[in-house]
Amino acid sequence: MGRVTARRRVLRFRDGAFSERPDTLAAEEPMEIRVGGRPLTVTMRTPGDDFDLAVGFLVSEGVLHRADQVAGIRYCAGATADGGNTYNVVDVALAPGVAAPDASLERNFYTTSSCGLCGKASLDAVRTTAAWTVAEDPLRTTPEVLSALPDRLRAAQRVFEATGGLHAAGLFSADGELLVLREDVGRHNAVDKVVGHALREGLLPLRETILMVSGRASFELVQKAVMAGIPMLAAVSAPSSLAADLAAESGLTLVGFLRGTSMNVYTGTERLQPVPVG
Amino acid sequence: MGRVTARRRVLRFRDGAFSERPDTLAAEEPMEIRVGGRPLTVTMRTPGDDFDLAVGFLVSEGVLHRADQVAGIRYCAGATADGGNTYNVVDVALAPGVAAPDASLERNFYTTSSCGLCGKASLDAVRTTAAWTVAEDPLRTTPEVLSALPDRLRAAQRVFEATGGLHAAGLFSADGELLVLREDVGRHNAVDKVVGHALREGLLPLRETILMVSGRASFELVQKAVMAGIPMLAAVSAPSSLAADLAAESGLTLVGFLRGTSMNVYTGTERLQPVPVG
Repeated sequence: MGRVTARRRVLRFRDGAFSERPDTLAAEEPMEIRVGGRPLTVTMRTPGDDFDLAVGFLVSEGVLHRADQVAGIRYCAGATADGGNTYNVVDVALAPGVAAPDASLERNFYTTSSCGLCGKASLDAVRTTAAWTVAEDPLRTTPEVLSALPDRLRAAQRVFEATGGLHAAGLFSADGELLVLREDVGRHNAVDKVVGHALREGLLPLRETILMVSGRASFELVQKAVMAGIPMLAAVSAPSSLAADLAAESGLTLVGFLRGTSMNVYTGTERLQPVPVG
Repeated sequence: MGRVTARRRVLRFRDGAFSERPDTLAAEEPMEIRVGGRPLTVTMRTPGDDFDLAVGFLVSEGVLHRADQVAGIRYCAGATADGGNTYNVVDVALAPGVAAPDASLERNFYTTSSCGLCGKASLDAVRTTAAWTVAEDPLRTTPEVLSALPDRLRAAQRVFEATGGLHAAGLFSADGELLVLREDVGRHNAVDKVVGHALREGLLPLRETILMVSGRASFELVQKAVMAGIPMLAAVSAPSSLAADLAAESGLTLVGFLRGTSMNVYTGTERLQPVPVG
């Protein structure tokens, strides 16, 4: 896993003076995801857990929801001029009968609605594509459990400690136990790696779990949670309007500004115990 | 500009108690960019400065570098079922003779190298696509000027104050004067809006300027700076390895962890005055 970080010389300015020293950076490299040999997308990611990233992305896109839908995953050899392997091209072979994604819709399935392009179309697209719903998920947890998650996430972030440069996504049980943690320069990638790991372990849908992310809660992160069957998304920072809208439509509990012992609950408040008065 | 934010009810947990109140969220909506009527990409963005976003994206992709290459920009009417306008589809008409982007390469021009897909290919692609270089840019500035930028950026961030949910990109002169600021839920979008504004004002290449971003410095942000002719990128947080590599190859000065009176200079240290000893 040496490629997770990279060493570079840096000129540091502190207390009015310059000094030169080595520094550790989070590694970022492009990765191409192919399905059945056909290029689908490229993501800038931190190397590591690449197979999880590839299949997790396909879960988010509605292509996969069970481990047996994957016939095989491999790095493409011969990608370099001398026939070598860059380990930056991953090909996912689908099992017979599994529909391949339409390459023209790459990452953009919310563009295909008859209503043109609006927030409503985005919400509709997710609703009709998910293999399951999270609205009826019986997850219940407490503010105390949630307040402990940011510190647990940070404590488990090995690469962040070295580089200060990685987003984290952690999957937790209802009582706050860390189940899986992944780090990446791209926050979407960190979530895809968690979800892909779960798919390959046969754990989807991720009932009664909480997904905690180190940054903000965007529409796409809520979408990824819903597609994986995760009923609660908690973020250190702010959610966007469309993230809250999709969470409300989907029955997902969305928590933002989870810091210290305070938090904002935007949707799905019934999962927070004790049930608030009023 | 009411669509820049959205109001939602939120259940707030503070000091051991829940209370319900209204909250202001950063607006996020999908925007489709078309070129000559042909869909190119969709980005999740905060509405506002949409035309700047569209042409700025096209600068980053190497399609545009002069204002006169744009024949017109418009919102597509008739995008909704009832013939209305969602203001989420922007069509850019290119001037005669300007080559349209290949839709199949959307966002992925670093995939087309003969060397398959590796960091080196990414760097080569940017180098051969840019209309100008930043290596010879005579910009010089001081640590004192740079140390003042984060506070100036934050002070100018109106929407962040209300929502806590937006990334910012600010363009500064060598002596620290704020020239343009843009905010967006997507940090790439904030930069594209700055660059697109500059294109339309006839200001490209942005010689002797400093681009300051509120988050981390990724490969794509360095790429956007280089494509706009900006010789210095400063970030509040960490750069990635490929960001530092591209900055070194391009002759761009890359500053990270710009906080208080300290910073790390990863590349292009000659632009920091006084010139450090050793």
